[in-house]
Amino acid sequence: MSASFANVPLQWVGPVKIAGSEIDVETELPLATYETPLFASVNRGARVATASGGIKAVVIDERMSRSVLFEAPDAIVAFQCLEKIKAEFPKFGTVVATTSRFAKLIDMHSQIAGNLLFIRFEFTTGDASGHNMVTLASDALMTRILELCPALKYESISGNFCSDKKATAVNGILGRGKYVVAELTVPGKLVQKYLKSTPEKIVQLNIRKNLIGTMLAGGLRSANAHYANMLLAFYLATGQDAANIIEGSQGITQAEVRNGDLWFSVTVPNLIVGTVGNGKGLPFVEEVMQKLGCREPCSAEGYAGQDRREPGANARRLALICSAAVLCGELSLMAALTNPGELMAAHRKLERTSP
Amino acid sequence: MSASFANVPLQWVGPVKIAGSEIDVETELPLATYETPLFASVNRGARVATASGGIKAVVIDERMSRSVLFEAPDAIVAFQCLEKIKAEFPKFGTVVATTSRFAKLIDMHSQIAGNLLFIRFEFTTGDASGHNMVTLASDALMTRILELCPALKYESISGNFCSDKKATAVNGILGRGKYVVAELTVPGKLVQKYLKSTPEKIVQLNIRKNLIGTMLAGGLRSANAHYANMLLAFYLATGQDAANIIEGSQGITQAEVRNGDLWFSVTVPNLIVGTVGNGKGLPFVEEVMQKLGCREPCSAEGYAGQDRREPGANARRLALICSAAVLCGELSLMAALTNPGELMAAHRKLERTSP
Amino acid sequence: MSASFANVPLQWVGPVKIAGSEIDVETELPLATYETPLFASVNRGARVATASGGIKAVVIDERMSRSVLFEAPDAIVAFQCLEKIKAEFPKFGTVVATTSRFAKLIDMHSQIAGNLLFIRFEFTTGDASGHNMVTLASDALMTRILELCPALKYESISGNFCSDKKATAVNGILGRGKYVVAELTVPGKLVQKYLKSTPEKIVQLNIRKNLIGTMLAGGLRSANAHYANMLLAFYLATGQDAANIIEGSQGITQAEVRNGDLWFSVTVPNLIVGTVGNGKGLPFVEEVMQKLGCREPCSAEGYAGQDRREPGANARRLALICSAAVLCGELSLMAALTNPGELMAAHRKLERTSP
Amino acid sequence: MSASFANVPLQWVGPVKIAGSEIDVETELPLATYETPLFASVNRGARVATASGGIKAVVIDERMSRSVLFEAPDAIVAFQCLEKIKAEFPKFGTVVATTSRFAKLIDMHSQIAGNLLFIRFEFTTGDASGHNMVTLASDALMTRILELCPALKYESISGNFCSDKKATAVNGILGRGKYVVAELTVPGKLVQKYLKSTPEKIVQLNIRKNLIGTMLAGGLRSANAHYANMLLAFYLATGQDAANIIEGSQGITQAEVRNGDLWFSVTVPNLIVGTVGNGKGLPFVEEVMQKLGCREPCSAEGYAGQDRREPGANARRLALICSAAVLCGELSLMAALTNPGELMAAHRKLERTSP
Repeated sequence: MSASFANVPLQWVGPVKIAGSEIDVETELPLATYETPLFASVNRGARVATASGGIKAVVIDERMSRSVLFEAPDAIVAFQCLEKIKAEFPKFGTVVATTSRFAKLIDMHSQIAGNLLFIRFEFTTGDASGHNMVTLASDALMTRILELCPALKYESISGNFCSDKKATAVNGILGRGKYVVAELTVPGKLVQKYLKSTPEKIVQLNIRKNLIGTMLAGGLRSANAHYANMLLAFYLATGQDAANIIEGSQGITQAEVRNGDLWFSVTVPNLIVGTVGNGKGLPFVEEVMQKLGCREPCSAEGYAGQDRREPGANARRLALICSAAVLCGELSLMAALTNPGELMAAHRKLERTSP
Repeated sequence: MSASFANVPLQWVGPVKIAGSEIDVETELPLATYETPLFASVNRGARVATASGGIKAVVIDERMSRSVLFEAPDAIVAFQCLEKIKAEFPKFGTVVATTSRFAKLIDMHSQIAGNLLFIRFEFTTGDASGHNMVTLASDALMTRILELCPALKYESISGNFCSDKKATAVNGILGRGKYVVAELTVPGKLVQKYLKSTPEKIVQLNIRKNLIGTMLAGGLRSANAHYANMLLAFYLATGQDAANIIEGSQGITQAEVRNGDLWFSVTVPNLIVGTVGNGKGLPFVEEVMQKLGCREPCSAEGYAGQDRREPGANARRLALICSAAVLCGELSLMAALTNPGELMAAHRKLERTSP
Repeated sequence: MSASFANVPLQWVGPVKIAGSEIDVETELPLATYETPLFASVNRGARVATASGGIKAVVIDERMSRSVLFEAPDAIVAFQCLEKIKAEFPKFGTVVATTSRFAKLIDMHSQIAGNLLFIRFEFTTGDASGHNMVTLASDALMTRILELCPALKYESISGNFCSDKKATAVNGILGRGKYVVAELTVPGKLVQKYLKSTPEKIVQLNIRKNLIGTMLAGGLRSANAHYANMLLAFYLATGQDAANIIEGSQGITQAEVRNGDLWFSVTVPNLIVGTVGNGKGLPFVEEVMQKLGCREPCSAEGYAGQDRREPGANARRLALICSAAVLCGELSLMAALTNPGELMAAHRKLERTSP
Repeated sequence: MSASFANVPLQWVGPVKIAGSEIDVETELPLATYETPLFASVNRGARVATASGGIKAVVIDERMSRSVLFEAPDAIVAFQCLEKIKAEFPKFGTVVATTSRFAKLIDMHSQIAGNLLFIRFEFTTGDASGHNMVTLASDALMTRILELCPALKYESISGNFCSDKKATAVNGILGRGKYVVAELTVPGKLVQKYLKSTPEKIVQLNIRKNLIGTMLAGGLRSANAHYANMLLAFYLATGQDAANIIEGSQGITQAEVRNGDLWFSVTVPNLIVGTVGNGKGLPFVEEVMQKLGCREPCSAEGYAGQDRREPGANARRLALICSAAVLCGELSLMAALTNPGELMAAHRKLERTSP
């Protein structure tokens, strides 16, 4: 059968007001998903957020990683090679520069297990999510290291200490993707008006369900109700590699009652999004990016004539907007869950059930 | 902006031969993803699998879960209520029957933390993945339990001990979705011919990367290279809730050299797929389901006149085909990684890189 | 060098009042540890607990597990054998009875990975923690299963799905050891008087440190400040296998402000303690057990002439007392941490620092 | 009741030959535990290790950590303060120097969750395991940071991102304690003679039980049979804080067949041991330390007149010897498990069972 398309329903919801690091905008949010009740849920969150004065969001960190894997004759040699590699680290930037205009090596971590040596390289990658850019750079770094340490042998360009699209702890601890925190204060009255709940109920539910319940489930660096839903929908709507919702889903929701109001926050440490690269050439993606204001030319050498944004600024803007979508959907569902029967009623109303 | 669609590139690859529990078929595999190099990778795996005599696959278990959350005055009362609920369990089936023709309650697990009582209900759900079916059934069960135990109070219809779309251990241990194992034996010569590798290299890499590397990354019940990629592509192509790739990605790849041949296996314990329900009404999904042979009428009362398959058989067939896609893509990438530079070369060739 | 002893400092602290399931006592708590500041810390907790009316504690569940491991030719055979084994389960009790008067098989869970079959047997074991009892019983069950399923081969009497003395999720989810919850309500005034803190401060710290902080650290089913310290000290003082503090440490602290008072709870799901078995024959252990009231003869056939307690009652009593020690130490440290500098001052005062 | 001692049986087993970084010795191994069959098991491992030419061991890294916790008004301020703190990092060494002669600040990691800021300080601590030393240093650093960032407020001297005595991923990834790898090659004939097994059987069991089995159990950075047993026994025998076996137990066993011989390795990334500090003043500990050669005076200013070892060398020696004990016990048990019935027979023979 010839190539075709999976047509995933896409809607714009909101608008929502977002301010914070590098952003001050009121924008609609694009979501594409088969789980269409999500549109109404995020929309409700966006309305209450905007009525409350808007969401504050900040990019704490950004990087993309790739861990290469070497075999050594034994642990002592692995350790000696690691020492050599650490000493050589300051020179690795020039190796990386031969592979990309945008990739910059910013850090390195390692693990030794028996005679195996894992090196995790960490880069900024401009406006790309950077999967391929870091693989290419790591390929060059491996070659350099194998020259430097003839005792080592190639085992794999990816040793799973990266770690891509897997439920692990390393990405949250060492960083992978955009690390974003978004927060919102909803006046007590608006909690009642828009969300049919109270700050106290939402705070209590967050502790009991997201923190304690996930812990009991053996959750790993996760304390939220359904980040994955918003991430999937936002990633599909913006041409991202949506398999990265796996690390993306590992985030933490916090809620506090402050002077009778609800303070609500989502910490999403592994947002792997880009405005260029795979998936971005599709016409609808281009249109979405334009509408989100993520198509400003960047200032990198040779990339564009107009110096409007530094490389990475478009992608960070996209990550901040994405975090707002996560906050809106999370808040709306948490509020709904405080009311017996509300979740089910919403689904019944909004979904076409099959025969 | 009015509703539209995200158009995700969809291709059929293969065909691949699959035999095993409830299935004996040679079928192409539908994949929809922005990461288009995946098509070639899974296709290579399908070709070598078919040349090797085909994949064996079996559904070990199937269930969908929802955990409700109650507040008790203290732990002793929580415990006493739990004892009552356990005693009442045999009668819960009739409660569930009032909410669905297809949902059947098959098991129940619980957790007490302080004064909180979490009950995890586990159901079979016919051909649906069952998210809504089990929420509806759990809603009715909560009502029943609140009558039975007036000391309890509603806290949430979902207490995150379910656990939906989150990186947790509970789903692998207690079961959620289809638990499928697929395996394949590739003659040593065909490993060389199709995969440009050797059984020994692939086995060694699996131990070092998938088992040890993931462990070092703090991986949770995960030992694979990239199940998430195949799951996302298969889920989008078949109208599934693709956010469930999170638990789906938590599976284990095994490889052994057996008499000079390569035995290769994927264990995917949390395949949450259905052939009816949300997302299934879209025309392209209908077409895909037809082509996969997952549109046979089932025997449930009122559902169809022809008694061809028991409820659930279509969904299990879909899960088995999905597991084959996972195996093909995993095998192909693992083989590629044994050769320095091969992964990068493939990506360079197959992707349109952005400017 | 000939056999000798490691002399670990042992003190009795308290007393503390404990009521609840099967227990109503005021007792001192025995602790043995090189970290001697712990004595004062638990003692402070015991004093405030008793002044507040005492601790309520309840045993939610008890069991000891061993998972055996078989090799099958392939996953389909593994699955077919598992079905046979499940059908035979009701007859396994008689197999177990040939190995022990006290071991009772109560449940069974399984996992299949590729061609590997893991069966996790779960038993009650009377007053013993039961490590050897369940190994012996599982040995007999393996023999029975190998007769029943000639296609299976012995791989290991322990397959690590047990899981003994390792940081895993399975023990909390399926149960291993005594599952105990202890709770206490401290009047606001006594929080100030004994703990130099406020209910609000302790509640906030518990959310931020124990729940969120541990989550960020990639914690697994853990949300506490230092259960391990109290468990180690109590286990050494009562002749337990203290390596089981590993699963024991995986518990959850909860705190709430209730009408101006502090409600404080520890959930310790994996207390692996016994009053008979290894380590219990030492004279000081015997003395400790006597003092704790854990030397009442039990009613099992042939075990003792006087029918005073059912098998297991002594061990459950010990577990309840242990949970009280955990609560006292946890509360005291949490309170101390709310005051800048208090922790360090206490350590400086109480420890002899080495040159 | 007045202070007394828990008398834990202590034996010296071996001797075992150990060579590698900073060590070349043949020494007996001190073990104290109630689980007395461990003595024979480690002894068997020591005999085969020595007969095979001895164990190679290397310290890959060493550090002790403490994470402090601040409250900020919001995430943006938390981020701005973090930037300030990072800029100030080079000056923190002088702050630390005011608190200890031995503590040296070597690295810093951070996490932001909502408005919470966690800073994890990492130090070398000479020959002490360093718990108190890093608390004292972190106390001073907190004071400095609160001056630097008046917008921050003290929340806790320990925020659980440290992470002390808890089952987490952070310690393995960022380092805590001595990171040690020990390895051994046993000629095929000696595997048969001493261990009644074959290299092939042990390698296969390690993959199936330690790697796959632990993964199925939801294990976190753990792939071993029973490190905890050896660590507990060695820690108690040498006056360590044995509650640190929790992170200590999170290590990885590897085994390969190499030219018909068995290569066997233990990676123990979190060995928290010291030769000075709490517990070290007890007479039997002093005697043990002397015998192990860990009482050489170190060269630190004012500590001793003779410049024999740099600070930390005694503790690293202790860690290397400890890793050898871990390897010996692990190898012996793994071999035993390859033979049906052997484990149980050993326990029956060696333990005095209680009435």
